[in-house]
Amino acid sequence: KRIFSIVCIPGDGIGVDITDAATQVLTKLSSTFGTFTLKFDTLDWSSKNYKERGYYAPEGGVNSLKKYDAIYFGAVGWPDVPDHISLWQMILPIRTTLNQYANVRPTKILPGTSSPLSACVADPSLLDWVIVRENSEGEYSGHGGTTPSTAHAAHTVATEVSIFTKVGCERIFRFAFETALSRPRKKLTMVTKSNAQRHGMVLWDAIFYEVAREYDGRVEYDKMLVDAMTVRMVNRPESLDTIVATNLHADILSDLAAALSGSIGIAPSSNLDPTRQFPSMFEPIHGSAPDIAGQGIANPIGAFWSAAEMIRWLAGADGASNDEGLVEGTGVGHMVEAADCLMQAIANVTENGVKTRDLGGKSGTREVTDAVCEEI
Amino acid sequence: KRIFSIVCIPGDGIGVDITDAATQVLTKLSSTFGTFTLKFDTLDWSSKNYKERGYYAPEGGVNSLKKYDAIYFGAVGWPDVPDHISLWQMILPIRTTLNQYANVRPTKILPGTSSPLSACVADPSLLDWVIVRENSEGEYSGHGGTTPSTAHAAHTVATEVSIFTKVGCERIFRFAFETALSRPRKKLTMVTKSNAQRHGMVLWDAIFYEVAREYDGRVEYDKMLVDAMTVRMVNRPESLDTIVATNLHADILSDLAAALSGSIGIAPSSNLDPTRQFPSMFEPIHGSAPDIAGQGIANPIGAFWSAAEMIRWLAGADGASNDEGLVEGTGVGHMVEAADCLMQAIANVTENGVKTRDLGGKSGTREVTDAVCEEI
Ligand SMILES: CC(C)[C@H](C(=O)O)[C@@H](O)C(=O)O
Ligand SMILES: CC(C)[C@H](C(=O)O)[C@@H](O)C(=O)O
Repeated sequence: KRIFSIVCIPGDGIGVDITDAATQVLTKLSSTFGTFTLKFDTLDWSSKNYKERGYYAPEGGVNSLKKYDAIYFGAVGWPDVPDHISLWQMILPIRTTLNQYANVRPTKILPGTSSPLSACVADPSLLDWVIVRENSEGEYSGHGGTTPSTAHAAHTVATEVSIFTKVGCERIFRFAFETALSRPRKKLTMVTKSNAQRHGMVLWDAIFYEVAREYDGRVEYDKMLVDAMTVRMVNRPESLDTIVATNLHADILSDLAAALSGSIGIAPSSNLDPTRQFPSMFEPIHGSAPDIAGQGIANPIGAFWSAAEMIRWLAGADGASNDEGLVEGTGVGHMVEAADCLMQAIANVTENGVKTRDLGGKSGTREVTDAVCEEI
Repeated sequence: KRIFSIVCIPGDGIGVDITDAATQVLTKLSSTFGTFTLKFDTLDWSSKNYKERGYYAPEGGVNSLKKYDAIYFGAVGWPDVPDHISLWQMILPIRTTLNQYANVRPTKILPGTSSPLSACVADPSLLDWVIVRENSEGEYSGHGGTTPSTAHAAHTVATEVSIFTKVGCERIFRFAFETALSRPRKKLTMVTKSNAQRHGMVLWDAIFYEVAREYDGRVEYDKMLVDAMTVRMVNRPESLDTIVATNLHADILSDLAAALSGSIGIAPSSNLDPTRQFPSMFEPIHGSAPDIAGQGIANPIGAFWSAAEMIRWLAGADGASNDEGLVEGTGVGHMVEAADCLMQAIANVTENGVKTRDLGGKSGTREVTDAVCEEI
């Protein structure tokens, strides 16, 4: 019986509510299966503590995460701390320090829920995507500055520098092609804005076509400009399958995808180190939602789905590639079955109408959580 | 009777079809009103000519546009020329050289057409937005490079540098606040990604709040992260009115807006020099659409709407600000009425079901054009 140690960072706002809910569901799952154990530690890296102590993670904090098998993250951000501070002190350094260069964001319409898109209201199967987000560089490199360093000089100029490396592009494209290969339709759409951004984005495109050659005949691929991509997501959802995009583009497109699938409250995200050298991190894509925090009404489905992805990743059976090629499924302790079971439980619960308000239901976080535990 | 000289640059693909259609409609409009005259010149700056001659605009070409009252642009881009070449040799230099720092993109659902959003299918008035796009700097500055300058070294790195100046931010925010003031609801939503982009975007935010102080109590304003903004556009379209965003963010959001309003084929865009030192440029937001070019089926509505915006701008009665404040309407030759008349003609035609395929109709470009001329 394999023991996995998971570190939870609930963070701020509804991050706390949904992390509680997720650990409850995960505990139920492992005790039901009985073939694997999850041990949880919790870290209080939050905006509240930042206000009191002056830091989110203590010195060496991010490195201390390396001893865990996985990281479960709630949400970070609170009105009284500028957002760029909360993010650059916590979530962004975790992603880059732990080599989590692939952020995977599946989207589909769950049973019993509906899309705001009229076409998908009639046929929810039209929308079934996985967005692979470059998670380590690009527009989130953090480079740049402001001169003079006050906003108040008439001639102040600030720069924001996006960095694209050949290594970074190659590995995310290879990961995306492997993801596409693992799905029934084996299609990959690459998103770019190389028409207007003539340096980094042009390299991005060139490397895409280099990597694509390795997959010729095995994966069907095409290229979209990010602006036109939003139109295609709205008008021809069925034409898309796997999508690969830069850090910023995929950030935007994955929120849009979540909205089109019914609610941002259901959308999961996995920050993966495909080499498995360091722990990967799992988090719902929604934020800390200060407006509904602590009211017991947050939708925990995105948190549960993220938890299912964590279990699947821990089993090593997800079809992701590492530097040497495909990691074959090891099926540790029936964990793939456990992940499937959790996804089925979620589907049964939404289908039965036990849903939070964002999905048009009346239930609270606790009620949905209990119902999912019940189904397991 | 005032004579305006307009230079048309049809460009590539359906740009040619819809520019023809627009000049036909504009000619009909001025002859019907009889109080103003439009004289058209046409320039053959196209991808076809680039292939033959090695350039789009000849030496000094962009400066030669300064003598016109306005520029009417079709579309540029063709599969056999890399997109970053076609754009950086034509449309982007025009926008920046002629100080067209404000790109204005209204969106609404036309009568007789419908939105793919189920909520807006029931109530089309929910969606009525103007996106104000920073059009001169930001992510489209063109700065950056690749080292080594081949994509084939293992350590190749490329950068894409976004530039934000205090001057550039200030003037676009002031323009956006004036636009919001000119609309019934007087609301402005500022879009940012300063949580992840901690230099340029942080300056963008700071200057927004500086300018906002001048409008306190007159315009209601708020701030959205660009990813969350897509969710709000889908879920709460009625909560938005005027929107201001960076060059890249607004590019993405305006395509999404067009898709949500029914078709990218109807969406207009005005590239304005609010100081009126140089001519402004009017273009539908769609591209050259190689797949349907030359088949007579392109939707000319975006082109007509852009033409109406051009007439309104020429009248100087649009409520836009310049560096000294508001430009008051001069009502030259009933041109405001003419612009209104053209918009009404468009609405009547779509309401009567004379629509191209992208709007669910069966008509071709010519039929729609004739119908609009008829209504005028
Ligand atoms: C919190 C923030 C940094 C984050 C991002 O932009 O990456 C969030 O929007 C996400 O999508 O995970
Ligand atoms: C053609 C291209 C440069 C352009 C842009 O990205 O600005 C287009 O998408 C637009 O929105 O006007």
